[in-house]
Amino acid sequence: MSGAGPGSLESLEAANLALYAAIETADFEAMSNLWVIGPDADSSVCVHPGWPAVAGRGQVLRAWALIMANTTYIQFFLTDVRLWIVDDVGVVSCQENILTGLDAGPSGGVAQMSGGKVVATNVFRRTPEGWRAWLHHASPVLATDDTDDTDGAASDSGVVWPGSDDNDPDYNDPDGREQQR
Amino acid sequence: MSGAGPGSLESLEAANLALYAAIETADFEAMSNLWVIGPDADSSVCVHPGWPAVAGRGQVLRAWALIMANTTYIQFFLTDVRLWIVDDVGVVSCQENILTGLDAGPSGGVAQMSGGKVVATNVFRRTPEGWRAWLHHASPVLATDDTDDTDGAASDSGVVWPGSDDNDPDYNDPDGREQQR
Repeated sequence: MSGAGPGSLESLEAANLALYAAIETADFEAMSNLWVIGPDADSSVCVHPGWPAVAGRGQVLRAWALIMANTTYIQFFLTDVRLWIVDDVGVVSCQENILTGLDAGPSGGVAQMSGGKVVATNVFRRTPEGWRAWLHHASPVLATDDTDDTDGAASDSGVVWPGSDDNDPDYNDPDGREQQR
Repeated sequence: MSGAGPGSLESLEAANLALYAAIETADFEAMSNLWVIGPDADSSVCVHPGWPAVAGRGQVLRAWALIMANTTYIQFFLTDVRLWIVDDVGVVSCQENILTGLDAGPSGGVAQMSGGKVVATNVFRRTPEGWRAWLHHASPVLATDDTDDTDGAASDSGVVWPGSDDNDPDYNDPDGREQQR
């Protein structure tokens, strides 16, 4: 472990949490400040669940702005958080357990709550100002937990994708952290 | 550009292609050789479309074995391939345009072909033996191309996710490559 300094695992975890806090609070300025600027900004990539990639800082922030504008309420409970640092790259893999409020319609307010699971890969770059988001790939977890591994599940393309073993203690340790340097 | 040497963008692209060639040919040994070994192997992560993450070399390879065993025919046409190298980390973002053969049943053979789109993030580590796969995150593209950006589409969790602009020439240039060092 490299302590709690600006390039540490703790700071990487804090940057990851800040990303989700920005979504929860619909704080576009915070989100904007979290993404890389300068020469690396053009190579920013964002994949939102069920969508193709958007690339470049402008497109990435535009997508976040649209999500914020269209989300009445959202809260993230992160599990299976895994963090690695390799040189100046920080990689976070986590499951987003999402609680969202469905819009009540023209009258406003939240009609009902809904839950969902998303798996995310977040890649950060180490900068003089701290970790900055560079790549966010989030995808829906469509498979049900009670599916036996050997059964698999046919996707739209007809491919059978195997599941993970939920009983694997190494995989499911919410406090599991690893570091690569 | 750093030329065609062992750590070059060209070699990173070759490693990425080798990953898909291994799936197409159901060559488990090739796939096994493509993934990192040693201390970094435990932190390997794979997310297959619609599924949660599997972590660790054993689980990752087990998932690939199951996919290979359950896939009659699969072919990948990669578009929107983007590659970056930061220090000893290689990142590839690409769209997998997948052609699969649906099994005819007990009589064997391919009954019919089916197409699908998947967006993938592949992270490689630079090793003395060349690039080795370390993280694969693939997710289904469920959004239709004719959806207007401002319409969005409600996911299961009720969140409206914005789409990408397919007319953005920077995003859709299939030959677009960038390098970060």
